[in-house]
Amino acid sequence: MDIVAVGTVALDSIETPFGARDGVLGGSATYLTMAARYFVDEVGLVAVVGRDFPTPYMERLRDSGVDLLGLTTDEDGDTFAWKGRYRYDLNDRDTLATDLNVLATFDPVLPPAYQKARIVCLGNLDPAIQQRVLDQVEAPEFVILDTMNFWIDHTPEALVEALGRVDCLIINDAEARQLADEPNLIRAASQIRAMGPDVLVIKKGEHGALLFTEETVFSAPAYPLEDIEDPTGAGDTFAGGFAGYLASVGTYNVDGLKRAVVFGSAMASFCVQRFGPEHLQDLTEEAIRDRVEAFRALSAVPELVLP
Amino acid sequence: MDIVAVGTVALDSIETPFGARDGVLGGSATYLTMAARYFVDEVGLVAVVGRDFPTPYMERLRDSGVDLLGLTTDEDGDTFAWKGRYRYDLNDRDTLATDLNVLATFDPVLPPAYQKARIVCLGNLDPAIQQRVLDQVEAPEFVILDTMNFWIDHTPEALVEALGRVDCLIINDAEARQLADEPNLIRAASQIRAMGPDVLVIKKGEHGALLFTEETVFSAPAYPLEDIEDPTGAGDTFAGGFAGYLASVGTYNVDGLKRAVVFGSAMASFCVQRFGPEHLQDLTEEAIRDRVEAFRALSAVPELVLP
Repeated sequence: MDIVAVGTVALDSIETPFGARDGVLGGSATYLTMAARYFVDEVGLVAVVGRDFPTPYMERLRDSGVDLLGLTTDEDGDTFAWKGRYRYDLNDRDTLATDLNVLATFDPVLPPAYQKARIVCLGNLDPAIQQRVLDQVEAPEFVILDTMNFWIDHTPEALVEALGRVDCLIINDAEARQLADEPNLIRAASQIRAMGPDVLVIKKGEHGALLFTEETVFSAPAYPLEDIEDPTGAGDTFAGGFAGYLASVGTYNVDGLKRAVVFGSAMASFCVQRFGPEHLQDLTEEAIRDRVEAFRALSAVPELVLP
Repeated sequence: MDIVAVGTVALDSIETPFGARDGVLGGSATYLTMAARYFVDEVGLVAVVGRDFPTPYMERLRDSGVDLLGLTTDEDGDTFAWKGRYRYDLNDRDTLATDLNVLATFDPVLPPAYQKARIVCLGNLDPAIQQRVLDQVEAPEFVILDTMNFWIDHTPEALVEALGRVDCLIINDAEARQLADEPNLIRAASQIRAMGPDVLVIKKGEHGALLFTEETVFSAPAYPLEDIEDPTGAGDTFAGGFAGYLASVGTYNVDGLKRAVVFGSAMASFCVQRFGPEHLQDLTEEAIRDRVEAFRALSAVPELVLP
């Protein structure tokens, strides 16, 4: 298995200034795997859904080429449901409801084929569960962890323990400041890398992403889009493109990581142009390549002519 | 005269998490000219100060190489004074006091030598006054305008009229959204450019800057600094480096504008490392060149290896 992504599959209800949808296919593992499978063939999803999960959504995931051996259906409850509303400029959102449902008792068990995963993506779950997943994989090349303010607040010890076992952390800028308890993002990054992950990616939404490694800081812009419909899943889609690119090339050096950030940003830019993961269903290799080239052009500084 | 900057010279009282200073030399024209004079020899400042303006500050400006023929002293009042406090992460600030003092009756008169300025920088003042300054210049190569939410709210007609007469507008992202009444920054940029300025620079603080022209969008990161002491004046310093670079090369094509954004960003990154304009006093050509090269490295995407 090239990539195994553990996380959520959800039913989302989303309001943006451009419309509202109920019961949209969502969840971190959904976006991540739907993006990653453009880069490698074997992408496995580990998550749980409930008895209400629509069959067409199951088919949509399968038709996308995502391996569903790790997706279990818990007939005792309903699917994890999230309801949120984005504000005027799409940079802030209010969570209106979070119904954990079957997620509350989710304790992922990896199918044997998944235990030799090359890249493991630990979606935003209880850090104790993230660690139990790590206990089940043999010798992954690269482990990526996602987390959020809830776990930073409520399970800081388990989170720090998990961070000590991963290669890469992907979080947003507010979470990075909170995790390090340090307002300066650059100092926060150093402190977080000292907790374990060699590689840190800080997502900044419409402002792009920063990559930190031992040797370098790299800044990638967000793609300037006129037609953003729904930012839901952008971060997970970024992670999917990032992990997918790394898995496809199989190297984890600085240049490879920078390229992976650009591919992740490109995939995220497609995601936000439609509601839910809609746009992740029908991309072409050419469309992805073109957008990645546009990213390069966007931030390329011409050879400097000194005054 | 290479550059004439009309704006404010102020006495600032600044609180940041790293300290507090009273009566610091400040004002938009101060920061702008102190940055610009690294690039060209003839930089003229048009502003007013009051009877309380300290002689050492006057000397500091003069010693920096700024031409003070356009700086008048109004003995009937005190210097424009601003007091502000930055919050925890330095991204937000509260204005605690604004005493216009002699600025309230300021009606700039350009000395004859200034009327042939190659580049005119119209600092954040009443758009009617900005236009009266434009009436006094003969055939400038490039006119740059700065504004703020107050003028967007209170004098929208005069502002739009002024925008129709300039080549370039430099504002921050919140002001851009407000001016265009459009939450999407890319669409806002198109609408603002349709109001007059061919070139639009949107400043995003710690997230860098975006350049919009007819042909292109260019994204420049902010420099990742661990030692930010005081963000005051960063935007005006950016404008000074931007205008200074353009004046030094004398061309206004897309590549030149991109380079100017990088030089402006580099100058702003120096500014925020010390309180007030302190760090703008003693930079070397080498330090500026090194930082500009670091900017290039920061966002350079390695040649893409497609998966």
